Amino acid sequence: MQCDFRSSIECFARHGVRKTAVWRDKLEAIGADEAARILNDNGVEAVSFCPGGLLTAADPAKALDDNRRWIEMAATVGAKSMVTITGGLETGDRDLAGARLRALEGIGKLVPDARAAGLRLALEPLHPMICGLRSVISTLADANAILDRLQADDVMGLALDTYALWWDSELERQMERCGARILNFHVSDWLEETRDVRLDRGMPGDGQIDNRRLRGVAEAAGFTGDIEVEIFSEADWWQRDADEVVKTIVERVAVAL
Amino acid sequence: MQCDFRSSIECFARHGVRKTAVWRDKLEAIGADEAARILNDNGVEAVSFCPGGLLTAADPAKALDDNRRWIEMAATVGAKSMVTITGGLETGDRDLAGARLRALEGIGKLVPDARAAGLRLALEPLHPMICGLRSVISTLADANAILDRLQADDVMGLALDTYALWWDSELERQMERCGARILNFHVSDWLEETRDVRLDRGMPGDGQIDNRRLRGVAEAAGFTGDIEVEIFSEADWWQRDADEVVKTIVERVAVAL
Repeated sequence: MQCDFRSSIECFARHGVRKTAVWRDKLEAIGADEAARILNDNGVEAVSFCPGGLLTAADPAKALDDNRRWIEMAATVGAKSMVTITGGLETGDRDLAGARLRALEGIGKLVPDARAAGLRLALEPLHPMICGLRSVISTLADANAILDRLQADDVMGLALDTYALWWDSELERQMERCGARILNFHVSDWLEETRDVRLDRGMPGDGQIDNRRLRGVAEAAGFTGDIEVEIFSEADWWQRDADEVVKTIVERVAVAL
Repeated sequence: MQCDFRSSIECFARHGVRKTAVWRDKLEAIGADEAARILNDNGVEAVSFCPGGLLTAADPAKALDDNRRWIEMAATVGAKSMVTITGGLETGDRDLAGARLRALEGIGKLVPDARAAGLRLALEPLHPMICGLRSVISTLADANAILDRLQADDVMGLALDTYALWWDSELERQMERCGARILNFHVSDWLEETRDVRLDRGMPGDGQIDNRRLRGVAEAAGFTGDIEVEIFSEADWWQRDADEVVKTIVERVAVAL
C-alpha cells in the first residue's frame, strides 16, 4: 500500500532504514517544512529529492521556475542531490535532437541555483522505452557527454538506475568513466514478463539484472554512497503492506546486492 | 483481424502490394511449398523471412538445427534474407555478456549454411525493453560490431527497425556506417501512451518516430530496398479488418515516409 509521507518515514524508522530518497509529490502534499520535521523526528535523512528537471518543454521558462522552487524544497529537507531527468517529447514533437539541446541548455541554467543552494544535480538517464515520455537521455554515454559539456562537476553528477541501464553493452565502460560523478545508485529488477513500461519493476533478485555485479562496478569506479531501492510496481508491491515491502527491501539488499 | 497466409497474400494483392515479409509461424502452419505456390499465384514476392536466430539458449545445438530448417524454408519461398534476432536470456540467467558471445558464435556457424542457400542473414537489433525476452543486441552499434567481427558481408547484413532504434542518439552515425549492409528497413511508430512492451506499435504517423528522416538517412547510407511496415498491435490494428489495415499502410507509406 502506498502511504503518506509521515507513515512512510515511520515505517522506515521501524525497520532501521535511516536514509531515503524523498519524492516531490509527497513533499508537495504536506510542505517541505513539515516533511523536514517528520524526517528529523524519526532520525531519517533525505539523501535525494526526486525528480527535478523535465526541461524539454517547448516553453522552458515555466520549467526553470519550477526547478528553482524544487531546489529550494530539496534544500529544506536537507537532500544532498536532486535527481534530474530531462523530460521527453511533447505531443506531436518528433525532434529528439532539438529536445536534447533544450535539456542541455536548461540544466546549464540550473547550475548556479543548485550551487547557491549547496545541492548537487544528479542527471539520471532513463530507459529507452520512456524516451518520449520522460527522458530523451537514455544512456550513460549521453549523460556523461552532457556533464563533459557543462564542465560543472562541483554541482553536476549522475544518478544511475540499474533498471534503466542494465541492457547497455557500453554500461560498464561508461561507469568506469564516471568516477565520483555517481551520486545516486538506484536498483530494482527487470521482470521476465514485464507488463507495463513504467510501473512493473521487480524487487532485486526477482528478475534479469545482475545488480550485484553493477554495484561492484559502481564502487570500483568510486561510488561511496547508499543503495536506493526504487520499485515502481502498481499491480504488485504497491498493493502490499508497507512493512512487508520495507522488510523485503532490507532483506534483498543483504542477499542480492 | 489476423488472417491465415493465403488470405493475407490475397489481401496484399487486392491492394497492389507486391512484396511482403513472411512469418515463420504462418509458413509452418501450411508448409513452405504451399506458401510458395500462394505467393506465386498472387504475384507477391517474399522479400524476407522472420524471424530466425534465437541462438542464446544454453544448449545451442537445437537452435542451430532449427535455423538450418528455417534457412531451407526461407529459400523455398524465395526470400532474399532471413531476419535474424539473437534471442534473450533464459530464466535465471543474468549473464548478458555470455549470451552475447553465444549469439555471435551461433550466427557465425550459420554463415556457411546461408551462403550455400543463397540467403542473406539480416541481423536485427531489437528494443532494449525486450533485451531479456528476445534480443541481447539492442543497438545498431552492437550489431555493426558483430558484423565487423564476422567478416562475412557477402552473407551478413542488417535489418533496421525504427521502432527498436529511434531513441538512440548514436543511430544516425551508425546508419552511415552501415552502407550496403542494410537489407531490411522496418517501420512502425512509437505511441505516446504505450501499453505493452511488445504488442502496442502504432501506424507510421501516429507516434513519436521521425520515420521520414530515418528513411532518408538509410537511403543516403546506401539502402535501396523496400519499406516493410511491421505493426504488432494486439489491442488495435490486429482487431481490425485486414483490408482496412493494408489500405491504411499503403496510405501511410505515401504520406509519413
